[in-house]
Amino acid sequence: MPVNLTSPVAAQLLPVAGVSLGVAEAGIKRPERKDLLVMQICEGATVAGVFTANRFCAAPVTVAREHLAQAQGIRALLVNTGNANAGTGEQGMQDARTSCAALAGLLNCKAAQILPFSTGVIMEPLPVGKIAAALPAAVADMRADNWFNAAHAIMTTDIVAKAVSRQVNVDGVTITITGIAKGSGMIHPNMATMLGYIATDAAISQPALQKMVSEAANRSFNCITVDGDTSTNDALMLIATGKAALPEVKSAGDKAGRALLEAITGVATWLAQAIVRDGEGATKFITVHVDGGKTEAECKQIGYAIARSPLVKTAFFASDPNLGRILAAIGYAGIGDLDVQALKLYLDDVLVAENGGRAASYHEEDGQRVMQQSDISVRVVLNRGAANATLWTCDFSYDYVKINAGYRS
Amino acid sequence: MPVNLTSPVAAQLLPVAGVSLGVAEAGIKRPERKDLLVMQICEGATVAGVFTANRFCAAPVTVAREHLAQAQGIRALLVNTGNANAGTGEQGMQDARTSCAALAGLLNCKAAQILPFSTGVIMEPLPVGKIAAALPAAVADMRADNWFNAAHAIMTTDIVAKAVSRQVNVDGVTITITGIAKGSGMIHPNMATMLGYIATDAAISQPALQKMVSEAANRSFNCITVDGDTSTNDALMLIATGKAALPEVKSAGDKAGRALLEAITGVATWLAQAIVRDGEGATKFITVHVDGGKTEAECKQIGYAIARSPLVKTAFFASDPNLGRILAAIGYAGIGDLDVQALKLYLDDVLVAENGGRAASYHEEDGQRVMQQSDISVRVVLNRGAANATLWTCDFSYDYVKINAGYRS
Repeated sequence: MPVNLTSPVAAQLLPVAGVSLGVAEAGIKRPERKDLLVMQICEGATVAGVFTANRFCAAPVTVAREHLAQAQGIRALLVNTGNANAGTGEQGMQDARTSCAALAGLLNCKAAQILPFSTGVIMEPLPVGKIAAALPAAVADMRADNWFNAAHAIMTTDIVAKAVSRQVNVDGVTITITGIAKGSGMIHPNMATMLGYIATDAAISQPALQKMVSEAANRSFNCITVDGDTSTNDALMLIATGKAALPEVKSAGDKAGRALLEAITGVATWLAQAIVRDGEGATKFITVHVDGGKTEAECKQIGYAIARSPLVKTAFFASDPNLGRILAAIGYAGIGDLDVQALKLYLDDVLVAENGGRAASYHEEDGQRVMQQSDISVRVVLNRGAANATLWTCDFSYDYVKINAGYRS
Repeated sequence: MPVNLTSPVAAQLLPVAGVSLGVAEAGIKRPERKDLLVMQICEGATVAGVFTANRFCAAPVTVAREHLAQAQGIRALLVNTGNANAGTGEQGMQDARTSCAALAGLLNCKAAQILPFSTGVIMEPLPVGKIAAALPAAVADMRADNWFNAAHAIMTTDIVAKAVSRQVNVDGVTITITGIAKGSGMIHPNMATMLGYIATDAAISQPALQKMVSEAANRSFNCITVDGDTSTNDALMLIATGKAALPEVKSAGDKAGRALLEAITGVATWLAQAIVRDGEGATKFITVHVDGGKTEAECKQIGYAIARSPLVKTAFFASDPNLGRILAAIGYAGIGDLDVQALKLYLDDVLVAENGGRAASYHEEDGQRVMQQSDISVRVVLNRGAANATLWTCDFSYDYVKINAGYRS
């Protein structure tokens, strides 16, 4: 079950002026399930995104990148679950384009103004006929206060839908930010079967928006791991409709830009953490802080060695303070000149290891107490510099194997 | 249960002249279990080894390296299970030295002529008193035909003992090679909780022996992964007693040297594969070949991305030809200029993917047939060069989680 994460409340999700959402049942993988989402965006909005670094990126990722590059003004996002349209070769590219064209016909725009997204099983042909047949129902369903249903329509192995709204006052104007995301397995930096959509009613120039989505992703979705697998389909999209009465923000670095970036990053971080809390089979939510490193990169490298280790993750599942496994992971993280005598390891507030071994003050019952919590933090202090990084992961349980051994059947 | 691996037969393990082995019950972690091994080596033998690259290497690894560097002639190896003496700081170093001194006293040699090895739980103090108390019984037990008991004494979570003998004719002289190894979890390149000891009665100069142990390790133990965790204690030791009537081999590159290296690598490969076959919770043994790469390093990088992926490994456990997960792993392996259109993916003899998607000739029932085997090979042909690499791994099952969630209790 998700770790300290409950389903969103529809009434708490705020519409974003300029965005309307519709869902439908296309029957892509299973009947009687909303598996199609259309997000229509008003004319004049800006859209920016970051995509998976996987070389086997899915056809819709390639097409979405192409359409963004053409800069003809994005008018809608089309998302299907049940099929990733990845590892599908030339046919997959055609299918992604056909889907865009079908929606463009209904919305009276060009296919290049549609961004396609798919998530689900890899290497199966996309049932593009079913998608085209269900699109009219999705378009008919479009309304501004439909984020709750949209969050549900993009779920795959997710147990809980992920959606959140924030408001922030910028120069006296209330700006709304609402975001949804899906993802539960194949979660790792540069994202995964992760899809995220965040919209704001602020007006933000295209270059500033691109900078904001990259920075927000680096501080949120690029700081999580469930299983270390980077998916073929990951994408985080940021939409700025410009419907609020705030002059266009042209830089992520000025006062208004910083305030918006902070709020957008807050939404992205909430969604990213929700993905980990709903990680496949998760029973514990683990925050890994690495402090006192020479560079942020080496802090992330050590943090990911801990956060990815199956031995560390099964120890958390067992509530077993077998903390030597964390030391081993730090040791093999690949930092060649790491002085293991100099570092300190904490579990929440408990000092566990120093001087290359167990701390004299450490008592197993203190470690045991922390391990039994559902939210746990691990802190490594390297004592070799001023950089730091924070990552989020979950434990590794029987249910992880159960879910992934049975996903297709 | 181990995959196509049965317990060794004592009568098939050949003594190596110049090596005698004794085991005893020290009660380090559990009573009534042989957990201590002494391997005495004749005067004049050469000994070489490779050790873990983990920065948090265990105290015995540090001490063994020191003693090898002192080059006073190694006379015995001392191995305990139940405690890794890793993450134990300065006390751990003292404990490793004390253990060596205790054995040296019994064997009338110097402490620097003993190499210590420990495997088991990390970050617990080594019960050095129990070891010292049990050493006389281990020494009294020493005999040349004791490899079978030695292989059992070094087991931890291993289900089956790992031991093998080979004979090879070099210049008309029959040379014997016998090896034992332990390891089941925390298995990854640069080894893991892996310990391996291989002895031959050939005479091999120290530089040639060091070259042989490195090359044999690179082609065997450094080609396996169970869980991606590199342990603090890994070591592979190669002993050459010089008791056979063959002139000293001074190079790994001449005719006799090549013949010996080939035979030693054969023993090392058998042992390394046995570790994977007995991998924690393993139900399938998987060989990953990557062909047609630019360099061996990139072939290994792609091979390990496949072999480490929890999603790939759970699909093997489920006998589910969900082969898109393998494509995804290839795609995120980190080869920036990889052309996914050019590569081919095979499952045993079945062509699964080409041209960036599923092969036209592929039928799911063919994939299903291969997935149901207990020994499976995955072959990726990159079509970008002449290099290749072969790795071995196992699947990821409920029992992996069960074993690692309960290891300490």
